Amino acid sequence: MDLLTPSLNHLIDAWLDEDLGRGDLSAIAIQNDIVQAHWIAKQKGIFCGGLVVEHLFKRIDQNIELQLLVNDGEGFTTGQKLLKLQGRARSLLAGERTALNVAMHLSGIATTTSKLVAELKNFQVQLADTRKTTPGLRVLEKYATRCGGGINHRQGLDDAAMLKENHIAWLDGDISAGIHKIKSNSPWPAKIIVEAETATQAEQAVIGGADGVLLDELPPEEVLKLVPKLRNLAALRKQEKNCNQIVIEVSGVDPSNLKAYASTGIDLISSSAPITKSSWIDFSMRYE
Amino acid sequence: MDLLTPSLNHLIDAWLDEDLGRGDLSAIAIQNDIVQAHWIAKQKGIFCGGLVVEHLFKRIDQNIELQLLVNDGEGFTTGQKLLKLQGRARSLLAGERTALNVAMHLSGIATTTSKLVAELKNFQVQLADTRKTTPGLRVLEKYATRCGGGINHRQGLDDAAMLKENHIAWLDGDISAGIHKIKSNSPWPAKIIVEAETATQAEQAVIGGADGVLLDELPPEEVLKLVPKLRNLAALRKQEKNCNQIVIEVSGVDPSNLKAYASTGIDLISSSAPITKSSWIDFSMRYE
Amino acid sequence: MDLLTPSLNHLIDAWLDEDLGRGDLSAIAIQNDIVQAHWIAKQKGIFCGGLVVEHLFKRIDQNIELQLLVNDGEGFTTGQKLLKLQGRARSLLAGERTALNVAMHLSGIATTTSKLVAELKNFQVQLADTRKTTPGLRVLEKYATRCGGGINHRQGLDDAAMLKENHIAWLDGDISAGIHKIKSNSPWPAKIIVEAETATQAEQAVIGGADGVLLDELPPEEVLKLVPKLRNLAALRKQEKNCNQIVIEVSGVDPSNLKAYASTGIDLISSSAPITKSSWIDFSMRYE
Amino acid sequence: MDLLTPSLNHLIDAWLDEDLGRGDLSAIAIQNDIVQAHWIAKQKGIFCGGLVVEHLFKRIDQNIELQLLVNDGEGFTTGQKLLKLQGRARSLLAGERTALNVAMHLSGIATTTSKLVAELKNFQVQLADTRKTTPGLRVLEKYATRCGGGINHRQGLDDAAMLKENHIAWLDGDISAGIHKIKSNSPWPAKIIVEAETATQAEQAVIGGADGVLLDELPPEEVLKLVPKLRNLAALRKQEKNCNQIVIEVSGVDPSNLKAYASTGIDLISSSAPITKSSWIDFSMRYE
Amino acid sequence: MDLLTPSLNHLIDAWLDEDLGRGDLSAIAIQNDIVQAHWIAKQKGIFCGGLVVEHLFKRIDQNIELQLLVNDGEGFTTGQKLLKLQGRARSLLAGERTALNVAMHLSGIATTTSKLVAELKNFQVQLADTRKTTPGLRVLEKYATRCGGGINHRQGLDDAAMLKENHIAWLDGDISAGIHKIKSNSPWPAKIIVEAETATQAEQAVIGGADGVLLDELPPEEVLKLVPKLRNLAALRKQEKNCNQIVIEVSGVDPSNLKAYASTGIDLISSSAPITKSSWIDFSMRYE
Amino acid sequence: MDLLTPSLNHLIDAWLDEDLGRGDLSAIAIQNDIVQAHWIAKQKGIFCGGLVVEHLFKRIDQNIELQLLVNDGEGFTTGQKLLKLQGRARSLLAGERTALNVAMHLSGIATTTSKLVAELKNFQVQLADTRKTTPGLRVLEKYATRCGGGINHRQGLDDAAMLKENHIAWLDGDISAGIHKIKSNSPWPAKIIVEAETATQAEQAVIGGADGVLLDELPPEEVLKLVPKLRNLAALRKQEKNCNQIVIEVSGVDPSNLKAYASTGIDLISSSAPITKSSWIDFSMRYE
Repeated sequence: MDLLTPSLNHLIDAWLDEDLGRGDLSAIAIQNDIVQAHWIAKQKGIFCGGLVVEHLFKRIDQNIELQLLVNDGEGFTTGQKLLKLQGRARSLLAGERTALNVAMHLSGIATTTSKLVAELKNFQVQLADTRKTTPGLRVLEKYATRCGGGINHRQGLDDAAMLKENHIAWLDGDISAGIHKIKSNSPWPAKIIVEAETATQAEQAVIGGADGVLLDELPPEEVLKLVPKLRNLAALRKQEKNCNQIVIEVSGVDPSNLKAYASTGIDLISSSAPITKSSWIDFSMRYE
Repeated sequence: MDLLTPSLNHLIDAWLDEDLGRGDLSAIAIQNDIVQAHWIAKQKGIFCGGLVVEHLFKRIDQNIELQLLVNDGEGFTTGQKLLKLQGRARSLLAGERTALNVAMHLSGIATTTSKLVAELKNFQVQLADTRKTTPGLRVLEKYATRCGGGINHRQGLDDAAMLKENHIAWLDGDISAGIHKIKSNSPWPAKIIVEAETATQAEQAVIGGADGVLLDELPPEEVLKLVPKLRNLAALRKQEKNCNQIVIEVSGVDPSNLKAYASTGIDLISSSAPITKSSWIDFSMRYE
Repeated sequence: MDLLTPSLNHLIDAWLDEDLGRGDLSAIAIQNDIVQAHWIAKQKGIFCGGLVVEHLFKRIDQNIELQLLVNDGEGFTTGQKLLKLQGRARSLLAGERTALNVAMHLSGIATTTSKLVAELKNFQVQLADTRKTTPGLRVLEKYATRCGGGINHRQGLDDAAMLKENHIAWLDGDISAGIHKIKSNSPWPAKIIVEAETATQAEQAVIGGADGVLLDELPPEEVLKLVPKLRNLAALRKQEKNCNQIVIEVSGVDPSNLKAYASTGIDLISSSAPITKSSWIDFSMRYE
Repeated sequence: MDLLTPSLNHLIDAWLDEDLGRGDLSAIAIQNDIVQAHWIAKQKGIFCGGLVVEHLFKRIDQNIELQLLVNDGEGFTTGQKLLKLQGRARSLLAGERTALNVAMHLSGIATTTSKLVAELKNFQVQLADTRKTTPGLRVLEKYATRCGGGINHRQGLDDAAMLKENHIAWLDGDISAGIHKIKSNSPWPAKIIVEAETATQAEQAVIGGADGVLLDELPPEEVLKLVPKLRNLAALRKQEKNCNQIVIEVSGVDPSNLKAYASTGIDLISSSAPITKSSWIDFSMRYE
Repeated sequence: MDLLTPSLNHLIDAWLDEDLGRGDLSAIAIQNDIVQAHWIAKQKGIFCGGLVVEHLFKRIDQNIELQLLVNDGEGFTTGQKLLKLQGRARSLLAGERTALNVAMHLSGIATTTSKLVAELKNFQVQLADTRKTTPGLRVLEKYATRCGGGINHRQGLDDAAMLKENHIAWLDGDISAGIHKIKSNSPWPAKIIVEAETATQAEQAVIGGADGVLLDELPPEEVLKLVPKLRNLAALRKQEKNCNQIVIEVSGVDPSNLKAYASTGIDLISSSAPITKSSWIDFSMRYE
Repeated sequence: MDLLTPSLNHLIDAWLDEDLGRGDLSAIAIQNDIVQAHWIAKQKGIFCGGLVVEHLFKRIDQNIELQLLVNDGEGFTTGQKLLKLQGRARSLLAGERTALNVAMHLSGIATTTSKLVAELKNFQVQLADTRKTTPGLRVLEKYATRCGGGINHRQGLDDAAMLKENHIAWLDGDISAGIHKIKSNSPWPAKIIVEAETATQAEQAVIGGADGVLLDELPPEEVLKLVPKLRNLAALRKQEKNCNQIVIEVSGVDPSNLKAYASTGIDLISSSAPITKSSWIDFSMRYE
């Protein structure tokens, strides 16, 4: 699985140290027998975190056996068994809280995402995440939004460029110059997106060669009128080499307003809500 | 400030690397002038994260100057300026998203905590957090619950012991034996808490010498009857050396039920809600 | 075993790198056959470090097999075999010196502790360690004092609070205020200890609600008189909620004076001697 | 500068530890006076590494002052002074070798790149690097190719996707299916490139919606014929939403053959030669 | 193998993270079946890196099996199979580029070294490397020069001392005083080498008790005359205790001039050329 | 100072984290004013650790000012002020225990070393340390033995080679073959030492070309007879190129026996006693 990089190992080690500190004081009270356990969902939702949790327990003790009963991205109902575990009691206790924390958090994100995505199901619009992610967990939280049916926006400041409000101000509004400077210094596969706060900025971005335009906090009716204009400008520039299809995105959308935006002809709605507004899904680890 | 340990530095470095990756592609578009910026609250709440954010920006560039206008633990209203910043444009951009993410997340926790704490203001009960914290952020999230008026429960498996459901089962119910084993192996200042699912377990815990009893998911009326019994048992054992005051705590409390529990004579309500159920508070960084 | 946290792995890696540097120059001289070896004690003592040593060798080479013949905390005599090893010659050589160093050092501490503990065997007093530990080895050295029959004091500045001489001076002597500030900011399970240099300070500490009083360098006859007073003050405060049994501790005790203190009615003698005054126990690794 | 991330600090620390080991044995021979030094080029070339070297010396000792006389990306001649340094003699000696090594290596890459780029100056073709980079130095080596006038290809497996020979084989040749699977799982700004070993594969890639086609080891005359076909296929698909301009790239080009490929109408020649075939440029550090 | 230290593990993790970043975007396109692959040499040369590559793949996935067909230090011809691999497709893809990069780079060094060594085969002279190594790769690059038939010079500033031009200048030319200061502060097994730019300095070095003299950029005819003088001086001092055989070395030698130096009676020619002037050897990984 | 490498920074960070854990609970009790403090010696001895302690406090807070009143390697008497400090109270408290621990430990080693060295003052023999050092502290403990007047033996397995009892056994006693294999694989400045348990082995070592012979646990009278034989053998081999002066060393010496060995004509006595048998020197930090 492509999440299983060395940096995930380092992250897991840091998480475990955070909870274990100088060692579990309670462990001494029990025999270290081999025991069975399972996870139960106390709410319904979309599961996320199984692969990470399996890796986490193996990192504590290679002899722990874990069987996923629900895969990442699959739904579950209240009371459903999510996974089964077997291993030394102290090893399981050492990972229990951290494993639950990560999976409950990620499943909360996947579940919230899937609800928003469900609202968009009759539209040609996708839900994308943002860089508003919990520090330290970006790769996993973005994986959770994928598990919930969303798509990912750029992963960091380095895999796509974005001219935001302040870049444009510091460029004295010369969006085209900004795009040009970035294009000549970025890896060629890196796309350039412009965050536009007005229709004019959006049009300049398309003319200037942006790959994407992010319409920030524009009302839906304005977006509705703007989209065909931007498509036309993009069609014109397609004659030229090096100019791509424009991807039109809105942000700053209140979830209650999702459908109004979805019918404007845009490609993407990017929202931090699945990460910044979601609650954890409650799971319980039960020993047998 | 006692949060500013070397391990916080390592955490901040990892957060920045997570967002910067191989370097900010957009930075090239702008001059690297010294600029001013400030943070604006887009919702009201309790602020948390100022000290961390200041440290984070200094770690990127020692010449950044940051002035907190609202201190950690203080309230703010919509539109209020939270802090002012001055430094090189590229340095500010390098830290902006990460700094906002951490402060918005922590302020969400502080704000949610303060609301729950407000409900308890006429009671002699405190709100405590749990070990359900976002992996990697425990110290900071527990700091946020303090900023919101809550108190912290144990910080990890190593600074207090807790006999939970499964420990008790593996001990064949012999709570007293478990307490004894832990006491003779733990640092002497470490307290021992017993999670009780029944009144009988709670009584055994007090008799056995526990420092705290956590009543898990008992209905308020049962708690009301149990508390005086436990206080009496604790008073009896106080004759003996080595036995302390009992701290009575409930967990698994639905927020809507907070007051019902608060009037039962318990000492603490521990709740993961401030961390697992809170939304981020929205801040915006504006350049001048 | 609760010592086996990710941070122990990182510690072991750093130790091995310290000795191996850029690689063992002598290894080239030998075939890399599978060989047997064992450890012999060249002095008698209390063993400590077996679990760590086993983990260390497995970390070098998972195929090394190690069998402990003496467990941590058990005594051994001169000439006794402590453990048996089997594995590739170069793998064993890579870990030999580091493994011996850690076990000889820890066994020295366990042995010294056990001698001091033996002097206290007819008293109701326990021997506790301090924060005077070798930088980098606190968790392991505190484990060694447990193996020797001592108990651990707080593990760091974060799992219990202590008002020491200077805190009290900076508080202008207001011990009660200091205790109050700490109590309202610490995790609830954290105990508060006051280091008292005079009887008056000790009494104020008990009245102020301290969980422990550390009498520093008071002569035994003064301690003898003070203890009942402190117990009485503690009994009085026990009427109130939130006040615990007082733990009375002395420090700064010359080992020759141990019994004089032990008969004063105190609970604990804390001493850095097992760590700061102990010699390593000599072991030898012999190949067969 | 966007290279100056926390991970660069960690890299620099590791480099210094590699050379300093347990400490410079020769330093004891000298007084630790403040001295001046400068770097002299012993060959002509394009400079790269100044910013990193400045950061490296500051990391050893904040009081070292370094003035760049030639900026990264600028040319220099034999005997030209590249930079001036002032600081404690032992601090300068501690960084000297490592700093020279990194700058000599990176300047070698920048210089080799600039020679290849010069051959392409009358063509509309750019020179791109590859993922054949020295382990541990990718970000810096890709910075060096930019300093030499080249552009960067993807930075890792995560910021753009590429279907290579084996992916296609495992997909039983179904390039379109592969592109589709990747598109629906990647961040939306991530481009998808197909490595084609035949004209047919290249055409399928364009039809399938690839953003780039990499023609691997096709002879120039075949490339010449293929390019207009691919451009036509791309023009057709441009009618559809979500399809971009095609970027046509060749790889596996012998440097002697560069111009033959440059005139085929392609966009990019990607070559590992600047990194895998370049020699270091010789610099000398002279104390005054 | 003595290279397999914990620090090599950390290095490999960092390399893999560098290429994998936030995860391989292309992996999703393929089934994760168990597949076979092998490496083919596209040029002839001396192999180096097999042990590291095997360790690298095992670190990604313990179930990968790798069989070396050519050992480190052995020659291979164009088209020869170097090693065989079997494992999950995604695991092999995760390591492929990094593994090839390290082996192609190291084999380039071994091959270049072996060519220079071949020129010296009829002389009693050995080829040594220098501290001009790629930052982060010193241990491995020095291993590669050994695989190519060279010998290693000191590994860092800490395992042997060298008085260089500037040390001597700061000592006001008093080489003997410098040697004395270093000898009394270094581990006794550390040798002391003096870099001499003139015959006089070389003679002073021998008289002063140096273990080695490095004649820097002296013409071969001057070296020829100087060597017997230095041998005589060394023979004289051998009467005294603590004085060793002198090792005479030249540096700054143009490869075209190797034989002229080789016949002067010196012991060593140290050259950075195998590392700073070598090209990578091209290997290809082919799936079956 | 040559100890101040990046790896020392990492070590200091780890030490501080070890003591601070999740943050100092007691710090809240005090104002964070700027205060003065000094260190007092409670015993006489040789100071070691001042440079490290200064660096440690600066790493916590750059505004801390520290003035050493006694330098590393200098003696002090009971009651003498060792250093003065000024800084924020919480910053000083954060480093106090760790700084004292390291300096008390290192000064204990320096002091013990100096006593043993004093016994040898009328002899031409030096006292060397061994690889029996506390894991994690080798560089600093070896620095402490130098401060005490001793000299360092090899620093790790990589900067000199040693054929020990088991190597010789696995070589079927062929010491000469072992020396030859190591010489042809080690960096040329690396010396080769042979640990001899019999006179015959010692003679073979000299004949075989060893740079040093370590006579392990031979009685002084046997050493006395053996030394001239070994010197004669060494004189003979000095005719040949590549053979050095022999360094004769004894180990396994009981401190009471030091002078008996010192008069045998050997060069070195290596002893782990300064590290494995020393007690910490007691210092106290006093605030003003």
